[in-house]
Amino acid sequence: MSSDLEGTATAVTERKVVKPTPAELMEDAGTGLDYGVRPDRMPGYLTPIDRFFIRSHAPTPRLDAATWSLRIEGDGVREPVTYTYADLWNRFPLASTVRTIECAGNRRVLFGQAYGRTFGGTQWGRGAIGTAEWTGVRLRDLLEPAGVTPGAREVMPEGLDRIRARRPMPLAKALADDTLLVLAMNGETLPPDHGYPARVVVSGWLGAASIKWVGRIEVSERPLRVPWNTEDYVLIGRDYPDGPIPITGIPVASMVELPWPARLRPEPQVIRGRAFAGENAVSSVEYRIDEGPWRAASPASPQLPAAWVRWQFTWVPRPGDHVIQVRATDDQGRTQPDTVPWNDLGYLYHPVLSHPVRVEA
Amino acid sequence: MSSDLEGTATAVTERKVVKPTPAELMEDAGTGLDYGVRPDRMPGYLTPIDRFFIRSHAPTPRLDAATWSLRIEGDGVREPVTYTYADLWNRFPLASTVRTIECAGNRRVLFGQAYGRTFGGTQWGRGAIGTAEWTGVRLRDLLEPAGVTPGAREVMPEGLDRIRARRPMPLAKALADDTLLVLAMNGETLPPDHGYPARVVVSGWLGAASIKWVGRIEVSERPLRVPWNTEDYVLIGRDYPDGPIPITGIPVASMVELPWPARLRPEPQVIRGRAFAGENAVSSVEYRIDEGPWRAASPASPQLPAAWVRWQFTWVPRPGDHVIQVRATDDQGRTQPDTVPWNDLGYLYHPVLSHPVRVEA
Repeated sequence: MSSDLEGTATAVTERKVVKPTPAELMEDAGTGLDYGVRPDRMPGYLTPIDRFFIRSHAPTPRLDAATWSLRIEGDGVREPVTYTYADLWNRFPLASTVRTIECAGNRRVLFGQAYGRTFGGTQWGRGAIGTAEWTGVRLRDLLEPAGVTPGAREVMPEGLDRIRARRPMPLAKALADDTLLVLAMNGETLPPDHGYPARVVVSGWLGAASIKWVGRIEVSERPLRVPWNTEDYVLIGRDYPDGPIPITGIPVASMVELPWPARLRPEPQVIRGRAFAGENAVSSVEYRIDEGPWRAASPASPQLPAAWVRWQFTWVPRPGDHVIQVRATDDQGRTQPDTVPWNDLGYLYHPVLSHPVRVEA
Repeated sequence: MSSDLEGTATAVTERKVVKPTPAELMEDAGTGLDYGVRPDRMPGYLTPIDRFFIRSHAPTPRLDAATWSLRIEGDGVREPVTYTYADLWNRFPLASTVRTIECAGNRRVLFGQAYGRTFGGTQWGRGAIGTAEWTGVRLRDLLEPAGVTPGAREVMPEGLDRIRARRPMPLAKALADDTLLVLAMNGETLPPDHGYPARVVVSGWLGAASIKWVGRIEVSERPLRVPWNTEDYVLIGRDYPDGPIPITGIPVASMVELPWPARLRPEPQVIRGRAFAGENAVSSVEYRIDEGPWRAASPASPQLPAAWVRWQFTWVPRPGDHVIQVRATDDQGRTQPDTVPWNDLGYLYHPVLSHPVRVEA
């Protein structure tokens, strides 16, 4: 091999993620670890693995299922237990569920633009959200053999990535029907970037709770304080005098399935989008053009718990520059606000957005 | 380039399908056109595209969406209409639905073995079945602008493959909520082998009705007779004196998610499988080992219309040779029979199967 070729090979930056992230499908969020989906490249309801967003705190670890194990321990269980990968497949019932995962930092760039400021952290546009079919074992089935104590209060999965990402949840959430230790995604063995060999999916909560590459689960009788619920993934700043407030659920938000800004032809067409309200259901979606009257968008099937909904409306656009606004409402009666207060880490930005559209003459 | 390499290249048989079909994921059914999924390689509920079975009557055509069009015509519409690919995406609401497709010839090899005979046609084991999320336009929304006549009786999609595969359905089935002209599968643009740019999915019917590469839809006031409902995909033989009887729905059947024969270790483990009943729901699944008592298997989520269900049971196997039998029952009270009558083309073989299992000492 020539030294030229060797030179080229060493000049290539080592990738921190495993799957390809072509610009056609995914948007580089600037950290080398994080890639968002392009909202206009999701033709179906589910997000395929090839374009599912990646948010990691450290490079994707390459774990060997043959030597991997899961330890459940802590003062909240009577007897620690350790499971092998084969144990998970062979000893427990499987469940499959469709759930949306969204990063609490989704739309951070738009948050900054609204306030004329910038944030540290991952520079997310609208792409830190995706929906998949998750197959795995219910967390409660894994906890049961360890004997959860009457005083157990919190359950904290911990990742085997370099910085051991971890985030506690209340026992009740861990025991919920749809809290899974996931082994497969969209019918395939879980891919490396998405947590192979096992991750949790905590329905309707911020993505950071759905820890990837889980190797240990701590069950505790005391509240657990870790960087991920004290310093990061919290609401903090002068509008949160009682902060930091750890983020759990995700508030209602919506997105138009068009590039930002969009260019359209001056002909009748269906405008589509999605809305997601975390643990709550989306009950209605309205839209308006150029600050005209609000009108109801039509929902599209399917309608699933703790997963996004699709909506659509027909538009006959005239040439020129326009703005599409969408406001979704959840089943608790909460509608996307016009503005949201500032928080220093740029989380949960979920107001009505003004989607810029240019229609050709 | 050396002539050796050129020789190698020309020696490779041209593939009739586009996607890779590695033996690890798919079983070659012997025609060069048809590949089944391996029942033990489906960890999730959905079947990923990389292992979804392929059944084609001719090689996968490579169609160009930019020049493709869909024509709706026939004496059952007032005015023929033609849609471009962009029309489908831009002019109509989208719907997404999860549905199972099964070839009427699934298990044909087992049918032959049971009778000590062989069939022509695709040599299917248990793999001509799969479940996906299908996204597209409701057929009724496409028919509406053409003006269906009061006398319209049948709707027949026609493929752009070399032999123009086509199969009529009654107007009521074409107008059903879950009869779609599909544009995307598991969230991706429909892949070539699965019908790009557009196919129909006819819920709960034999796979052959879900025509791929659709370029024309005929709406007719008269019954339509084509090879696919007169000569092929019919029940015929001495047990069907009134035949040929065109096949429409799929009868209840089940499969164990293990290789055939299976080798297991002598330790407690969960045995899993799936059952499908076409347009009907699966209401219960029972199993027995070595002709012991029938016991109820546990259903696994999700439970969706016109789609397979998963079931599971825990088994503590002793070393030696065993037989697992499963019988599913649909919501019409029909249980898988012990035997089924012969039909000359080997369709709809759906009795209780005896799955051979060797347990290591």
